[in-house]
Amino acid sequence: TFSRGIQTVTLIPGDGIGPEISTAVMKIFEAAKAPIQWEERNVTAIQGPGGKWMIPSEAKDSMDKNKIGLKGPLKTPIAAGHPSMNLLLRKTFDLYANVRPCVSIEGYKTPYTDVDLVTIRENTEGEYSGIEHVIVDGVVQSIKLITEDASRRIAEYAFEYARNNQRTSVTAVHKANIMRMSDGLFLRKCREVAENFKDVKFTEMYLDTVCLNMVQDPSQFDVLVMPNLYGDILSDLCAGLIGGLGVTPSGNIGANGVAIFESVHGTAPDIAGKDLANPTALLLSAVMMLRHMGLHGYAKKIETSCYDTIRDKKLLTKDLGGNSKCSEFTDDICRRVKDME
Amino acid sequence: TFSRGIQTVTLIPGDGIGPEISTAVMKIFEAAKAPIQWEERNVTAIQGPGGKWMIPSEAKDSMDKNKIGLKGPLKTPIAAGHPSMNLLLRKTFDLYANVRPCVSIEGYKTPYTDVDLVTIRENTEGEYSGIEHVIVDGVVQSIKLITEDASRRIAEYAFEYARNNQRTSVTAVHKANIMRMSDGLFLRKCREVAENFKDVKFTEMYLDTVCLNMVQDPSQFDVLVMPNLYGDILSDLCAGLIGGLGVTPSGNIGANGVAIFESVHGTAPDIAGKDLANPTALLLSAVMMLRHMGLHGYAKKIETSCYDTIRDKKLLTKDLGGNSKCSEFTDDICRRVKDME
Ligand SMILES: CC(C)[C@H](C(=O)O)[C@@H](O)C(=O)O
Ligand SMILES: CC(C)[C@H](C(=O)O)[C@@H](O)C(=O)O
Repeated sequence: TFSRGIQTVTLIPGDGIGPEISTAVMKIFEAAKAPIQWEERNVTAIQGPGGKWMIPSEAKDSMDKNKIGLKGPLKTPIAAGHPSMNLLLRKTFDLYANVRPCVSIEGYKTPYTDVDLVTIRENTEGEYSGIEHVIVDGVVQSIKLITEDASRRIAEYAFEYARNNQRTSVTAVHKANIMRMSDGLFLRKCREVAENFKDVKFTEMYLDTVCLNMVQDPSQFDVLVMPNLYGDILSDLCAGLIGGLGVTPSGNIGANGVAIFESVHGTAPDIAGKDLANPTALLLSAVMMLRHMGLHGYAKKIETSCYDTIRDKKLLTKDLGGNSKCSEFTDDICRRVKDME
Repeated sequence: TFSRGIQTVTLIPGDGIGPEISTAVMKIFEAAKAPIQWEERNVTAIQGPGGKWMIPSEAKDSMDKNKIGLKGPLKTPIAAGHPSMNLLLRKTFDLYANVRPCVSIEGYKTPYTDVDLVTIRENTEGEYSGIEHVIVDGVVQSIKLITEDASRRIAEYAFEYARNNQRTSVTAVHKANIMRMSDGLFLRKCREVAENFKDVKFTEMYLDTVCLNMVQDPSQFDVLVMPNLYGDILSDLCAGLIGGLGVTPSGNIGANGVAIFESVHGTAPDIAGKDLANPTALLLSAVMMLRHMGLHGYAKKIETSCYDTIRDKKLLTKDLGGNSKCSEFTDDICRRVKDME
């Protein structure tokens, strides 16, 4: 009984401020008449046979069916042996690419004004393999695992992303001067894939050099692709350049259209439930989601309204330098969205 | 026949602009009447029995005798299997701590003006172990090795450094949420050592969080201690905040007073021999060396003169935004040093 074209998305509101910012996003989507219907699910991990931590089956089934999810912040569980929920989600749905566009926001003061780049992080292996051993007492090793398949897959994703998003260059970030075999393999795959994308410029740069150049002149970077840990670091560094995790969207992409979009900030328990949270990161993640679904018009409308509200400076939440409530900020975006009809 | 108190230092001028900036440092030291005598040595690696790359014996003997070295940039050798000279030096002399003070320079414009921190990097193990394997075709592993001894040693160095340099806090930088055993061990040792330094504040922070906070407000950091790769990244990031590798000093510290101080920028072959190079990074490294040798008065005199020349803006090299030659910049510092008598 739904109108043709309405798609269902799994919504994981999350903990702390998660429910408030999720409500804000739903309100704005409604104002924009975005053809999305939400299926709310809880992902608090459960222990399966043998003590293995798993996503509860209603959440798993919902994602398996809908393929696309939007997720707020999740509390880090403190039980011993409990994995990070973020890692468990990436693993459960084989979300191999973490994509974070970092774009300077007009009117929001930061030390940089000309950031416009995207970090693309390999999300399944590398330093996150989870393989560690005690060799002898006081001597420990962690294994960084790099495979040809995962390296080729993420390189292909990065080049396709560049091509499909009117970006002109891809930089592979590595330490192949030190990790000659592992980062060497990653880099070789990037070079090979680059051969098939002659329309996209390819460069390589050491991670330390990228960090140095990034804080000196971020405008020189476009799309960056890298192994897992380097992506963890660089994506946060770049988020810092544009104002932090409160304004930075993120998407975790898998095969066959499966994807989870998420705000990567914390649950902010100190302000939870007080109508003080900033929904921007989750909203811009939802905008990424709309683009992923091919709903570019709705994406543009919502994104523009959000940026307009920020630039206008009249109804900002506290973290953005204002005094307004989450609901007032949200209503202002809704008003602008409706004005654009 | 040398006056009492004159100490001999091994000087490794290095390649490219290395000789020019070394000459500049020697001139300034002479103007300051610093009680240092230089023993110049070349460290181009040679191959020993079994093809093992080694530091030539005259350089090794000189360092073994003098214990203290000053080094310009070295060309990265391109022969297959040739190690980085920097790594070979760190290994040969067991220089386990890499220390890089990053302080905003008055009058030199950068996006930040209030940086005043020191990165202390474990320099012997971690991701730089050099142990890598092909498991099966297309699957490679690199081993990150963390030991109790090296972790305790670097933690102790960091806390002692903080105490001896009037610094108030040490932050351990880690990813123990992901590398629970290896970074976990590193972190545990930092916590244990912190117990013995109750006068120094101890905090812990994830590497990604440090990167984000660093670009948002570097003034919150003081001394940072971390495993090898994280130090490689953070030290370059922090150098970027204050103007790059051209103005950032570095020291590699071993046991029993052994140490090599070095500029960490490149050899700049394009401007080599043209009297255009900026000697600041090597000079400030030499200032760190003077402090290491207990020659605080000379250190202060030279450092102040260098900063005064930069703040004055009249005789800057091109990379610092001026039009002057290396020798003019150097002479101005010499003049100021002499005026301070
Ligand atoms: C929560 C944590 C496990 C995660 C990571 O280290 O990848 C986070 O920092 C991120 O970037 O998503
Ligand atoms: C030259 C290279 C091997 C070195 C490193 O990676 O440690 C450099 O980046 C440094 O920081 O000294």
